[in-house]
Amino acid sequence: MTGAQNIDNGFTFVRSSCPITNGLDIFGDRWTLLIIRDLILGKRRYQDLISSPENIASNILADRLRRLETAGLVTRRAYQQKPERHEYFLTEKGRDLKPVLEAISQWAKKHSPGTAVFGPVD
Amino acid sequence: MTGAQNIDNGFTFVRSSCPITNGLDIFGDRWTLLIIRDLILGKRRYQDLISSPENIASNILADRLRRLETAGLVTRRAYQQKPERHEYFLTEKGRDLKPVLEAISQWAKKHSPGTAVFGPVD
Repeated sequence: MTGAQNIDNGFTFVRSSCPITNGLDIFGDRWTLLIIRDLILGKRRYQDLISSPENIASNILADRLRRLETAGLVTRRAYQQKPERHEYFLTEKGRDLKPVLEAISQWAKKHSPGTAVFGPVD
Repeated sequence: MTGAQNIDNGFTFVRSSCPITNGLDIFGDRWTLLIIRDLILGKRRYQDLISSPENIASNILADRLRRLETAGLVTRRAYQQKPERHEYFLTEKGRDLKPVLEAISQWAKKHSPGTAVFGPVD
């Protein structure tokens, strides 16, 4: 069994009542918190999100945005018709992950000294 | 492309210089932080780790412990020969993830009110 099966089933079962598990069932993969990082930093549009240096694949980005919307962390608003295009916004539930990102950033700045400083998050 | 490919290649390439990305390349999956949670809570042995309520598969647990050792977050010490059995300990680098777990726990306690309280972490 690979991690993929678990990730793909992320919203279909509850693994335990532990709050950490519950959080990881929503954002515990290699991409979701990076999307939330970008939204916190002010990115709104698909083309902006996909241009991040980690080179997320388009199908993964679309899938994660859909999951984040389902989980209530992201909302979207159409800014153009024909073709329809959306902007994505964090809800309070999504913005409240900022301390998680900051804690990860602090850890990595201490233990992976080669990494760049995480920019201001307001 | 699925998340699994990315997770399986977690230690083989650097996605970007962002410290968050760098952290997620080590523990950004649905299992690794749960293993670290258990080690922080005092579990030491494979049988204790595998008995957690999330029902981690044995091959995933073994893989993640090996990765954590490679990444310098965990050390192991043989406590028995024939058959050889090990105890696992967090290094400082591993223990320093406690604020990440606490931030996730705070988020989930606010946004997933059904989850149990995360016990004392000392």
